[in-house]
Amino acid sequence: MTVSIVSDRGQSPVAPTLAAFPVNQWYVAALAWELKDKPLARTLLGNPIVLFRCADGSVAALQDRCCHRALPLSNGTLEQGGLRCGYHGLLFNAQGKCIEVPGQERVPGKALVPAYVLREQDQIVWIWHGSEANPQPTCEPPSYAVHNDEQYLFEGDVYHYDAPYQLIHDNLLDLSHLGYVHLRTIGGNARIHMHAEMKVDSDETSVTVVRHMLDSVPPPTYTAAYPFTGNVDRWQEIEFHISHLLIWTGAVDAGSEPIDAPERGGFHMRGFHGVTPETETTSHYFWTMATNPPTNAQDVKAKVIEQTVLTFDEDKVVIEAQYRNMRQFGQAPTVDIHVDVGANRARRIIERLRSVDQVVSPE
Amino acid sequence: MTVSIVSDRGQSPVAPTLAAFPVNQWYVAALAWELKDKPLARTLLGNPIVLFRCADGSVAALQDRCCHRALPLSNGTLEQGGLRCGYHGLLFNAQGKCIEVPGQERVPGKALVPAYVLREQDQIVWIWHGSEANPQPTCEPPSYAVHNDEQYLFEGDVYHYDAPYQLIHDNLLDLSHLGYVHLRTIGGNARIHMHAEMKVDSDETSVTVVRHMLDSVPPPTYTAAYPFTGNVDRWQEIEFHISHLLIWTGAVDAGSEPIDAPERGGFHMRGFHGVTPETETTSHYFWTMATNPPTNAQDVKAKVIEQTVLTFDEDKVVIEAQYRNMRQFGQAPTVDIHVDVGANRARRIIERLRSVDQVVSPE
Amino acid sequence: MTVSIVSDRGQSPVAPTLAAFPVNQWYVAALAWELKDKPLARTLLGNPIVLFRCADGSVAALQDRCCHRALPLSNGTLEQGGLRCGYHGLLFNAQGKCIEVPGQERVPGKALVPAYVLREQDQIVWIWHGSEANPQPTCEPPSYAVHNDEQYLFEGDVYHYDAPYQLIHDNLLDLSHLGYVHLRTIGGNARIHMHAEMKVDSDETSVTVVRHMLDSVPPPTYTAAYPFTGNVDRWQEIEFHISHLLIWTGAVDAGSEPIDAPERGGFHMRGFHGVTPETETTSHYFWTMATNPPTNAQDVKAKVIEQTVLTFDEDKVVIEAQYRNMRQFGQAPTVDIHVDVGANRARRIIERLRSVDQVVSPE
Repeated sequence: MTVSIVSDRGQSPVAPTLAAFPVNQWYVAALAWELKDKPLARTLLGNPIVLFRCADGSVAALQDRCCHRALPLSNGTLEQGGLRCGYHGLLFNAQGKCIEVPGQERVPGKALVPAYVLREQDQIVWIWHGSEANPQPTCEPPSYAVHNDEQYLFEGDVYHYDAPYQLIHDNLLDLSHLGYVHLRTIGGNARIHMHAEMKVDSDETSVTVVRHMLDSVPPPTYTAAYPFTGNVDRWQEIEFHISHLLIWTGAVDAGSEPIDAPERGGFHMRGFHGVTPETETTSHYFWTMATNPPTNAQDVKAKVIEQTVLTFDEDKVVIEAQYRNMRQFGQAPTVDIHVDVGANRARRIIERLRSVDQVVSPE
Repeated sequence: MTVSIVSDRGQSPVAPTLAAFPVNQWYVAALAWELKDKPLARTLLGNPIVLFRCADGSVAALQDRCCHRALPLSNGTLEQGGLRCGYHGLLFNAQGKCIEVPGQERVPGKALVPAYVLREQDQIVWIWHGSEANPQPTCEPPSYAVHNDEQYLFEGDVYHYDAPYQLIHDNLLDLSHLGYVHLRTIGGNARIHMHAEMKVDSDETSVTVVRHMLDSVPPPTYTAAYPFTGNVDRWQEIEFHISHLLIWTGAVDAGSEPIDAPERGGFHMRGFHGVTPETETTSHYFWTMATNPPTNAQDVKAKVIEQTVLTFDEDKVVIEAQYRNMRQFGQAPTVDIHVDVGANRARRIIERLRSVDQVVSPE
Repeated sequence: MTVSIVSDRGQSPVAPTLAAFPVNQWYVAALAWELKDKPLARTLLGNPIVLFRCADGSVAALQDRCCHRALPLSNGTLEQGGLRCGYHGLLFNAQGKCIEVPGQERVPGKALVPAYVLREQDQIVWIWHGSEANPQPTCEPPSYAVHNDEQYLFEGDVYHYDAPYQLIHDNLLDLSHLGYVHLRTIGGNARIHMHAEMKVDSDETSVTVVRHMLDSVPPPTYTAAYPFTGNVDRWQEIEFHISHLLIWTGAVDAGSEPIDAPERGGFHMRGFHGVTPETETTSHYFWTMATNPPTNAQDVKAKVIEQTVLTFDEDKVVIEAQYRNMRQFGQAPTVDIHVDVGANRARRIIERLRSVDQVVSPE
């Protein structure tokens, strides 16, 4: 069963609005290790949802509202048979069907709550919202091999943003901000970032931005993690998809080897960035950071994660300040500069999908 | 002088709305011991009110707004003659008449603030709002003999709820939730509560729910308070009235004596629950809990109160979570189960009274 | 460049509303010492503004929004050339012109942010908003010689008020509240204040209130600061101007000399009170307090400032409580008393200027 997430569908037949988000997509609902022995409340694409792990190890997602008296099911407890409401004890299975009303023989046929389609893959739990036209997934969720690659160590977390998800896309697609926002960590010299050679490609559903910074001073995170001998040849490869971005960055000793070869050596940071709208104005940001330290692997990984956390905290401050200001000033005009190419293409992809979802939905 | 509490009376002559609450009723305004040497600010039925005890020991209630520059009178100080505003010193008597403007000979005739009808009885301070048609009380406030019965020791408190008052009625009228919400205190085995024998009666203004749980394991609060020898025969008797509920619970050793006799022995907990709307979405919950410990009276009473506080804290968490969720989901349908009978009858009584108050008011 | 601050100008051509505030005025934007090596964010007359001190020591004010991606410029950093945005590094000069886009040859012509007119004088930074008809100042900002008078020591601060600015005017223009709000500090006996001899004068843009309290008991602040021998002859002289008030208070030993002579001796407190609307419902209150202690100057000044802070804290509590109550009760009627004369005249001046600004604006 799906739940409409189009914010005001049907309110005005003469002026249909865009879907708030592309809905026929897999979005990140949770990192696998978040679902243990307790239900988890999380609003995704405007819908309050309870996520939980069943006794058989599978994952499930229901509307977070008991159909009896509306208590959040996330206030309940997990049992062998499913999730039991914390008010009057109704028990629901993974499909949202009530299978027990304590003290009552018959379970009313209407006693059910909407269920969502989940898939757990490569340590990521994906959710499909779908539209009335496409309630079931039309594709498989993305795989993410890095989480299963023994060469890499990783950790991750989820951040809550008081900002719409596209502002996070903008930030991740334009790494020129590193020189101003992240001086203390992965930034390094501002001029290097702004003058990096940049190549942007895109198709119907993705955008790629590749930046090379040759013979540049390695930033603090890099020198802390890897025994560079001096300047480095550095790359930043960003892949934008509707619901997540992959950012491959790294460096080799300057001039030591080509940096566009798949088998390049040196120091790598492989970031996964799942950006899921919570509401139209707030977001969940799921991230993992993987790295390939040659020696002292756990120590270096810990240092990389520590620096990554600092970096993402800095981004959060800037993006939330940006959004507060956008709300204050409303639809004031903006001026584009050279670094906006990737972010603007991503915005056009989302704009197109929102209108496609809108057209498809009412049929 | 009365103050209209109908939220949008008169705004739309073609579509009269229900009164927000039944207004021709006595509601609890305060517990007697709350009114000492300082004025008390409290919003009741949507009206900000200052409650205070006069020099002669009587209680008074005024609109909480100085008629000069609108400072809350509750920011002022009590004097022999009444309540003095904390900004420019205007002095008001218990009827809301300004009796002194410092530095000015004449007190303007318009210098008065609306007063409310209060009655103090059995340690409870009751307020009558009334309607334009019934500004004066049409009956006496309820008496509550338990507060004056030497056999009983009691304490009480007032809780603020971010939830409408009828959700508290629902909770108190359906004690089947004890097995899920109050496992740690008065709950005990969930199955016992859900399968209790239940009898519901009602008339025009009240609902009675009686539940018997024979030969059941006594819950933690009971064994802590009374020397039961094993299983118990347990009763729960709930009386709903518009503005308050009485809940008599208790137990005797299983099979030792009939539990529907007025003179039954054993362990008793007698709860008074005054539920007064603060606004349409928030409430005051005034409670006292009385008990009749056979020995170590003060210790047992302290233990009962401690457990009662824990229990009521648990209810508050659940009810406020329920209401937050109801606001999120709006008017989604609910499914009724067997335990809802009492609560549903109470809702019909209030619905009827709201429409009666509405019909009477404009005349 | 000016920015319209009329809240809904143009939305309804048939029913023009008043300007929210008189706009063709100098308002206090900052105390001079607030602008050092960091930009300062402050909303003034509804407009979010970044204030900063340039490398040459002059002060500047820009709209607090980068024209690229809307980050508050107050999140940026000060450089030799101006203010650099903290997201992508655009550099703006004191006139709001972008003079550098990192990594890009050409600066787009549209890359500019609105600038405001500032003047720094006598340790006060004044801002001129203006209207479309009067974008440039039509007069010089007020001078305030006390800040440069060696006879006086002073300190000051800025308070944020959750209340509209005119409630602060009311408070400062009617010092009869001293006896009820400020008993602990500058108040003293309430009767003295209420029965003080009061003289009110006014013209098109100012109001003067003079109060004399002869042969009265000096309040705690006074006796702490000056060696009075017994009762005092005390004065309070209040000058209201659109954007600020001057309050001269003080006392001499009772009967020792006339208190209306400019060269009078005794103990003086000279207060500057800049009241600048932040929004229509919130305010900035800039104050300095100067005094002329005959001996132990620094100690006495510290004591006077300490008492002043206590006093202003008391006012803030009362005024914010008053405004919360006004919002709760809406447009309920009020009753005037004798002490309201000065405050009512100030309100009429502001009302008139708001309508003048409105008439001028559309032309």
